[in-house]
Amino acid sequence: MSDWLDAIAWNTDGLAPAVAQDAASGEVLTLAWMNREALERTVETGEATYWSRSRKALWHKGETSGHFQKVVEIRIDCDADAILLRVESVGGIACHTGRRRCFFNKLEGAGGERRWVATEPVLEIPGKTHG
Amino acid sequence: MSDWLDAIAWNTDGLAPAVAQDAASGEVLTLAWMNREALERTVETGEATYWSRSRKALWHKGETSGHFQKVVEIRIDCDADAILLRVESVGGIACHTGRRRCFFNKLEGAGGERRWVATEPVLEIPGKTHG
Repeated sequence: MSDWLDAIAWNTDGLAPAVAQDAASGEVLTLAWMNREALERTVETGEATYWSRSRKALWHKGETSGHFQKVVEIRIDCDADAILLRVESVGGIACHTGRRRCFFNKLEGAGGERRWVATEPVLEIPGKTHG
Repeated sequence: MSDWLDAIAWNTDGLAPAVAQDAASGEVLTLAWMNREALERTVETGEATYWSRSRKALWHKGETSGHFQKVVEIRIDCDADAILLRVESVGGIACHTGRRRCFFNKLEGAGGERRWVATEPVLEIPGKTHG
């Protein structure tokens, strides 16, 4: 039975955006993409697996970096076209740049002076942390 | 100057997913889509404006329901292809179904018994609350 997978409104590429939120702090860590198989594996293994659009392959997050996302809860929205994971972010690093979260660029300034400013420190030297 | 808008990796439709998170509770409320103009208006007005993919029009969230999203902070991720808004959710209702948030469907059960279960009460009768 996979009615729960059929319930999702996958887009024309068979994907849906999946937001991962730190279960403890509430911080939004990452936005990645899942296909049906990625979500199925995520549920079966209890660790987030995404679909890498650049590599066109399933991507078990943490497989090279050790920074797995252990799943606490999975939700979908009213239109069933977006997924929300509450996760434990292993090692406290979710971004391939070695930062705690991918959303480290904050809009600052006003008028013609607006710019994106990196607000999070790099906790681990990148290279080890991709994936 | 709109370098900050050019910095975003809009997809082939000119869109990027935009997650809205309650600034007070940390709850992830909605995932919608923005184009360049939607983000520009959001920044200028301080209230979230999205691109409605179904209506193919700009959508000032709250324009019909009163449930505006007042923007506290705007972030983008490491790939600059996803947007995160921290917002004040006016009236405490972010979903067109009259619920506090759109992510009200939680995956429950195990094995062949998995199913999505609505975990949030309807706080306002829908009809008034679309948009």
